[in-house]
Amino acid sequence: MKLEDIFREKKAEALLITDPYNMRYISGFRGGEGMLFLTRDRRALITDSRYTEAASQETDFEVIEENRGHRRTAILRELFSETGAEAAGYEDQSLRCSEFAVLRNALPEVKHWIPLGGSADCLRRIKTPEELEYLRRAEAIGDEAFQALLPLLKPGMTELEAAAELEYQMKKRGAEGFSFDTIMASGIHSSMPHAIPSEKKLEKGDFITMDFGCVYRGYCSDMTRTVVLGKADEKQKEIYGIVLKAQRAALELIRAGLPGSRVDREAREIIEKAGYGDCFGHGLGHSVGLYIHEEPRLSPGDDTILEPGMIETVEPGIYVPGFGGVRIEDMVAVTEEGCENLTLSPKELMEL
Amino acid sequence: MKLEDIFREKKAEALLITDPYNMRYISGFRGGEGMLFLTRDRRALITDSRYTEAASQETDFEVIEENRGHRRTAILRELFSETGAEAAGYEDQSLRCSEFAVLRNALPEVKHWIPLGGSADCLRRIKTPEELEYLRRAEAIGDEAFQALLPLLKPGMTELEAAAELEYQMKKRGAEGFSFDTIMASGIHSSMPHAIPSEKKLEKGDFITMDFGCVYRGYCSDMTRTVVLGKADEKQKEIYGIVLKAQRAALELIRAGLPGSRVDREAREIIEKAGYGDCFGHGLGHSVGLYIHEEPRLSPGDDTILEPGMIETVEPGIYVPGFGGVRIEDMVAVTEEGCENLTLSPKELMEL
Repeated sequence: MKLEDIFREKKAEALLITDPYNMRYISGFRGGEGMLFLTRDRRALITDSRYTEAASQETDFEVIEENRGHRRTAILRELFSETGAEAAGYEDQSLRCSEFAVLRNALPEVKHWIPLGGSADCLRRIKTPEELEYLRRAEAIGDEAFQALLPLLKPGMTELEAAAELEYQMKKRGAEGFSFDTIMASGIHSSMPHAIPSEKKLEKGDFITMDFGCVYRGYCSDMTRTVVLGKADEKQKEIYGIVLKAQRAALELIRAGLPGSRVDREAREIIEKAGYGDCFGHGLGHSVGLYIHEEPRLSPGDDTILEPGMIETVEPGIYVPGFGGVRIEDMVAVTEEGCENLTLSPKELMEL
Repeated sequence: MKLEDIFREKKAEALLITDPYNMRYISGFRGGEGMLFLTRDRRALITDSRYTEAASQETDFEVIEENRGHRRTAILRELFSETGAEAAGYEDQSLRCSEFAVLRNALPEVKHWIPLGGSADCLRRIKTPEELEYLRRAEAIGDEAFQALLPLLKPGMTELEAAAELEYQMKKRGAEGFSFDTIMASGIHSSMPHAIPSEKKLEKGDFITMDFGCVYRGYCSDMTRTVVLGKADEKQKEIYGIVLKAQRAALELIRAGLPGSRVDREAREIIEKAGYGDCFGHGLGHSVGLYIHEEPRLSPGDDTILEPGMIETVEPGIYVPGFGGVRIEDMVAVTEEGCENLTLSPKELMEL
């Protein structure tokens, strides 16, 4: 998908791009606040004085400053009038209802408002070699930080302290930020896939599920490992083994040409056959790039055909309320023949 | 503003709450993904299996799990049909155009769709004593981390490393996360109010502007200090002095009963009279709470009358492209007589 395809397929004369990641991908502008105005001949970024100086270094777009004397709607009226565009595509998946209402009322010049859905996101699906390089490095920072964290995990440390250590280890290795709030879930907390780190202390016998990622040159990493502090009991070993088997089966299968739903099914059936189908409620994976959750997904409802250069996470889990849970997640780049696994951390059950 | 006021003023029989912070404020649920359905008699949270276990601990709302077999729209149809509600308020400032289109198409039961604007946000404007306590602690963590960082700032350290240290110091003191991406802008970077930390090394003579905040029990802190690495030159002293004078004047003035725009004007006039009016493009401040940028603001366009229990940042700045910039920011709680300054770090010009 190219910008020209969007103009043509959507019959749009102008595109208003408001999703911060799409703004960055299309223009280079990293500030995230503002709007792109695009026609086939004109490319402008509207943003405010907090960002205009940086913007002029980051993008070759015309940078127009919005301020109290020159509001965004006035700037847009000028742009529509100068370009004569009457059919405007807007990002209905990013634009809020109230923001759209303002635009629609302020711009009688626009005769047709065309919801773009995820079209502009689709520009970002296939990663370039440069993007892949950043994603590899982002994931490597996670791998290295995880290795540095493992010897520090001790009974008595709180989940919050462990999460802080892990994040510090990523930052020291060049992380600009984090892909999402680090998950550090121990003991029975690990049965909550999106647990928030707490003052709970790590205890002997706990499952510890760590789901984390960092941002490098704007690109997100994502990985999950579950370890046991001390010796694993039989039930922990059983659950871990099933999740690992499901994850490996999905990694074996994934390749260009398959629908994402097929890869999800491969892992899901293993978990279902082992009797834990009810304990795996989320999809198997998602794409990753400038944003942590991108399309297409590896999930029962997503039949998008995978293509070389797409990134996917592969992250089955089993969550048993009141007992604990396991998730194992790698991030891979899809290739013609299979995938390149960007996550290099070991995943045999670790007993710390 | 109370929930009952929203039902009455908006003539709504049901409210659909989708802003994650409003969801948390109203229900206690911290996961952020899902939707609240409220009538005067029924209170339900719809979320997915990643959050349902945590949700049942966090909220006394009825928790309804959405999944592939029981989608959100089907759940909402049941709720509207069971309650007989026909007038639904929705959060048009949080809901995306595409999400609203799905709801409108799927719910013929709803006869009137009522945009709520910022009504639900208004519930959060006046902080309770408990919220104030969390905000005080969040800001204190920032103060302590800043003190711990100062002796570590040395020429040759990169902005990214300095930002990592500052964040680590906050995490060690109990920060759950950060209010926003830490700004660590040195030398000419400091002329960009929202600079992104880079590999640039700190150098002797640099202004270093640090704008940072952490999250404690869900509540955000926010503060900015600008220091000079080494000796300040005359121009640096001049600019710093003007910003400090403007900031102190605004802190002297702020109190319940004044419009926010009046406080903005107090600081802005000092900067204008000193000849730097063009170098202060943003508003003087904003409210803070569960989210880092809340209403009302201290800005030329916001005439909201300040009330006791509101939180505001007071953060004038002067940014000179190609030279550098200064911003000084405290976070205060508005009182009848003035304010309680939650930020205790010194702000005389520091030469490190």
